[in-house]
Amino acid sequence: MAPRGEFELIADLLRPLATDPAARALTDDGAVLTAGADDLVLVKDAVVAGVHFLATDPPGTIAQKALRVNLSDLAAMGATPTHYLLALIRPRSADDAYLEALVAGLVQDQEAFGVSLLGGDTVATPGPLVLSITALGRVPAGTALTRSGARPGEDVWVSGTLGDAALGLQVLRGAWQPSEDAAAALVRRYRVPEPRLALGSALRGIATACQDVSDGLVQDLGHIAQQSGVSVTLEAAALPLSGAAVDAPGALEAALTGGDDYELVFTAPKDARGRVEEVARRTAVPVVQIGATSLGTGVAVLDDAGEPLALAGAGWTHCWN
Amino acid sequence: MAPRGEFELIADLLRPLATDPAARALTDDGAVLTAGADDLVLVKDAVVAGVHFLATDPPGTIAQKALRVNLSDLAAMGATPTHYLLALIRPRSADDAYLEALVAGLVQDQEAFGVSLLGGDTVATPGPLVLSITALGRVPAGTALTRSGARPGEDVWVSGTLGDAALGLQVLRGAWQPSEDAAAALVRRYRVPEPRLALGSALRGIATACQDVSDGLVQDLGHIAQQSGVSVTLEAAALPLSGAAVDAPGALEAALTGGDDYELVFTAPKDARGRVEEVARRTAVPVVQIGATSLGTGVAVLDDAGEPLALAGAGWTHCWN
Repeated sequence: MAPRGEFELIADLLRPLATDPAARALTDDGAVLTAGADDLVLVKDAVVAGVHFLATDPPGTIAQKALRVNLSDLAAMGATPTHYLLALIRPRSADDAYLEALVAGLVQDQEAFGVSLLGGDTVATPGPLVLSITALGRVPAGTALTRSGARPGEDVWVSGTLGDAALGLQVLRGAWQPSEDAAAALVRRYRVPEPRLALGSALRGIATACQDVSDGLVQDLGHIAQQSGVSVTLEAAALPLSGAAVDAPGALEAALTGGDDYELVFTAPKDARGRVEEVARRTAVPVVQIGATSLGTGVAVLDDAGEPLALAGAGWTHCWN
Repeated sequence: MAPRGEFELIADLLRPLATDPAARALTDDGAVLTAGADDLVLVKDAVVAGVHFLATDPPGTIAQKALRVNLSDLAAMGATPTHYLLALIRPRSADDAYLEALVAGLVQDQEAFGVSLLGGDTVATPGPLVLSITALGRVPAGTALTRSGARPGEDVWVSGTLGDAALGLQVLRGAWQPSEDAAAALVRRYRVPEPRLALGSALRGIATACQDVSDGLVQDLGHIAQQSGVSVTLEAAALPLSGAAVDAPGALEAALTGGDDYELVFTAPKDARGRVEEVARRTAVPVVQIGATSLGTGVAVLDDAGEPLALAGAGWTHCWN
């Protein structure tokens, strides 16, 4: 069978994803959303083979990662996702089975996250595979979380565990070989991040600044420090490491500078500790306090003795590798 | 100077484009739009080097084409554009001067069309250059134009002239060499389409179906025929050709099947002729009646003698060339 053309691809593969009438079954030039009282939150992140995922990753998880990194941005704003638009820039080498597996990943995640496709576009090229997604979410008017509300003297919290995704990439590259179970867990973190949507929306009105950890904790906290006009001090010993990561070579560096964890890092006043812990229990997402804000600028990491830790690199750069 | 990293690129080049406070100067994970009474229209079209433009086209016009094909989709829905989000997938070979020229094209068009950047993302890859845009517009609630409202017995209209862009591409490829003035006019049509925004919004409440001509008149009218459940008959002699195109070899085929014209093709009841002509005068966009709808399916083209015209190809496929 000849590979599908753009119209067949949209009709056969993408249209079934467009379950909301607002998408008009992808038969018009665009989608029409009726506005409500909520604020609309829009995020846009593209993922590219060899940069954000490995070309050898399973196509279903590639599509899920593309969607989930966008949902993670919505989580960081405290928004509830509703829709997404997808430009699928596919290499000609991607055959029908490959594209169907991509779409199967999206079908699964649409179900898991309650979102649907609002619009889409496909182009065949010599490569690499690019999935460019714009995701939409909603928050009650005026309640979106930002990076700019932290004040000196607040706690810094992070969800889940850090460094797993970076270690998973090392496993995939053959740089390190842990136990089979640990390898599977770490690779899963790299390939299929878990957007912290329930936590993000529960933190509205509690967190003073929030963002997701996509480029490495230190680098991402640097944005909060800069936008809020505060200094952040982290305690290395407080960083949450998973059972699979704790014995890994370079686990601390991965936790501080590895990308792709997609946990939420946020600030909250000291008197909100009880509320933060209650939210963590209610959403079943572990959170730990890893540092504090103060007057000043930048991000410092202290070792067990309270001395500044020297870092090899400030952050993670997603670049062709 | 080393090429800019993603953060520098966003800060230096993209942030000045984000003039609406809703974009939060691109410093948060996403943008926050306050909803209004209008419906929100969202469109998504990606353009890729070698598919939708030539890699040798000037970077400023590449960026303008990327934006304008999306604005054209909004025009086809009768929407007034407000914002756009951009994923800039740039080849590593694109240096700072190249990227600055891309952005200069966007600055010019933001001014021309009253839109601003709401969010963005950049990734460096081995190529090709991809600009993936999601554009937003507004229409009064319930008034968006669609492809599905045509009824049998209506007029079919088209704006401007047809076939110029396809002929312009032939000129760029050296397949044909017209006069210098004609060449410049045709190439301009290919590189920098004119989204018919004023016409589109003025047609709300008049046109029964509308879409833009991006993949060739016959193919695009096929969507209206299919979505509306009507047949469309075109008169070849009625197709509007520009002075630059009229003597070109293959002008009629270019007008029927050439892509990239980004004119609006629409249907309207016969008793709306006066209103259509008044709208054309008011918006200073020429429109001509090129056919009619009837019971049935599909699109037929009749020659001067009223006989069905045999077409070499039904439409234009944007594919790697």
